Amino acid sequence: MKNIEPGSHCTISVVEDPLHEGEYFFEGTEKLLEIWFSPSSPSSASGSVQGGRASLRDINRSEWELLLKNVNCEILSSRHSTTMDAYLLSESSMFVSKDRIILKTCGKTTLLEAVKPLLGLAKEQCGFDNIVDVFYSHKNYLRPDLQPETYRHFDQEVAMLDTLFEDGAAYVLGKLNKDCWYIYTLDRFNITEPDQTLEIMMMDVNQDVMNMFTQSYGLTASQLTEKTGILDILPGAIIDDWLFEPCGYSMNALLPNGRYFTIHITPEDEFSYVSFETNVPRDSYNDLITKVTDIFQPNKFIVTLMANEASPAYKLCLKMDGPVKPFRRTEHQACEMKNYNLNYALYERPPTSKLIPYK
Amino acid sequence: MKNIEPGSHCTISVVEDPLHEGEYFFEGTEKLLEIWFSPSSPSSASGSVQGGRASLRDINRSEWELLLKNVNCEILSSRHSTTMDAYLLSESSMFVSKDRIILKTCGKTTLLEAVKPLLGLAKEQCGFDNIVDVFYSHKNYLRPDLQPETYRHFDQEVAMLDTLFEDGAAYVLGKLNKDCWYIYTLDRFNITEPDQTLEIMMMDVNQDVMNMFTQSYGLTASQLTEKTGILDILPGAIIDDWLFEPCGYSMNALLPNGRYFTIHITPEDEFSYVSFETNVPRDSYNDLITKVTDIFQPNKFIVTLMANEASPAYKLCLKMDGPVKPFRRTEHQACEMKNYNLNYALYERPPTSKLIPYK
Repeated sequence: MKNIEPGSHCTISVVEDPLHEGEYFFEGTEKLLEIWFSPSSPSSASGSVQGGRASLRDINRSEWELLLKNVNCEILSSRHSTTMDAYLLSESSMFVSKDRIILKTCGKTTLLEAVKPLLGLAKEQCGFDNIVDVFYSHKNYLRPDLQPETYRHFDQEVAMLDTLFEDGAAYVLGKLNKDCWYIYTLDRFNITEPDQTLEIMMMDVNQDVMNMFTQSYGLTASQLTEKTGILDILPGAIIDDWLFEPCGYSMNALLPNGRYFTIHITPEDEFSYVSFETNVPRDSYNDLITKVTDIFQPNKFIVTLMANEASPAYKLCLKMDGPVKPFRRTEHQACEMKNYNLNYALYERPPTSKLIPYK
Repeated sequence: MKNIEPGSHCTISVVEDPLHEGEYFFEGTEKLLEIWFSPSSPSSASGSVQGGRASLRDINRSEWELLLKNVNCEILSSRHSTTMDAYLLSESSMFVSKDRIILKTCGKTTLLEAVKPLLGLAKEQCGFDNIVDVFYSHKNYLRPDLQPETYRHFDQEVAMLDTLFEDGAAYVLGKLNKDCWYIYTLDRFNITEPDQTLEIMMMDVNQDVMNMFTQSYGLTASQLTEKTGILDILPGAIIDDWLFEPCGYSMNALLPNGRYFTIHITPEDEFSYVSFETNVPRDSYNDLITKVTDIFQPNKFIVTLMANEASPAYKLCLKMDGPVKPFRRTEHQACEMKNYNLNYALYERPPTSKLIPYK
């Protein structure tokens, strides 16, 4: 595989396979890593931050840049709120708060290569020698055969994580031989603050909408954010948006109280993919899911929701939530773990449901 | 691997691994196959049964024996009710009713080798050219490395099934890297009669109880069935029980209306395993699970429950059912499919809970 445009989210890759010569492909499916840290004792929470309250946000940008080199991506832009730093990456996003980091990377990135250096940074720079919890997840790749070797089979990703963590638990939700979602977590300690993550992974997306997210369409990133309705999904956010060359779009949104949402778009018809992720707390996400899927109009999407006991979404994860029109929920799984509940659903557009013309 | 006693459920195998030379091992974990058939049209439901109502029960014993040769097991004994034939096998059990077969085999058997010949038999002998549904499942093997090649990784079992069936769905419930349960199903048509299967897979079982299921203990199979309380789990059954040489126990029980239960015991301390399976309909199985686990006193067990919409257990599969004392449910998953609901739970004995001395 050759990268024509290295470092771009929408890197068009030429598949080096004699059977598929000249075929373009980009893996929009992201790998998602979230790690929560804490000092093992109050005294070790100093590190380089002498006498202060240790925070991952004190780590220098040059250190993050070095870390991201291992993953094969780089920082394009950043925004900052009182509680969180949001970085737009050449391949997706990074969110850094005091004691938690979220790193999401698509394409052929080697996200797991970041874990060991990250644990080192957190310990050396912040005195965070205790790992509270780890979440590593991704939807099944469209083309696992084009991934770097470790990422071609989840078993190998688990084996790598098992060398770094004790007592990790690996799950697959959904159909192993069709659409599914892999997750590895420690589920070790009870995080006392409410924590919830909603992801919507949209496939086979409306091409009229996707065509807007190209340079040739003529709108800037911020014009697209407004015109498509992305701006109104969760109003009042600090926005960082980016339109890639020749196509593709990423955005980070910082909301009050350490809440965020992020959207990444791979618009090409042959492998169109849009992801939405947020940590806003809700006791029902149907309105939000409807808002998002109304914009992108996918033919198929996966929703995952993970919440701990302190979250208003905790019970929702085990319940069968209501329908998302006009879609049919063709798969549904709930998983009760030690501290978190988890919900997985696959929605498909019924053949009879026509696409609404895009405004 | 060498079989010291081929054809016995409790075949003690010598592991041909220089690191584990002379180590004895038997894989109690069963592979479980269930296939529902129907004629594609009333006229094709004749086959060899001219003018009659076609039934899998009309297939000759010699044909079953031939089929089971592919799997590497043989028939030891059989019992018959008005609706079902129950066969005790050298490795577990086979239940044959009019349009459904259940084949359960442990050890190093090659169960998937039975599928193609079985479809052939059903078509040729009964005119069953329509496959209504297929279920193939097993707990993760204790020693997958000692299984025949196809069975060492579930992906390979799925690949083999995918060559035989269209649109099969493969799932893993539980922790991929710990205890888990694999299932492949078509979930294709709505079986209108109530259908439910409960399995209890018990590990690390009380050795005082296990020692009874050896020839040296001195009780016959039927004495053991009575004395241990197995007879009273679901009273009124036609029983077929078998004590293996030098140890191990199997039993089939035929209940009225096509209901059955079956128990298989691998008693050796190093790899003790007991399985219980039944299709009796209930809207709660807690009493039954308690009865079974009270007899065998495992330190850990998996419960799986699968039920279709017509079954009283259908809703139970999505609900979080009550506790089974003294165990802690440390893992719980529910899965909503097209026609079936599915529930998976792992129970573990808390360290503080003492074993009740065996009466």
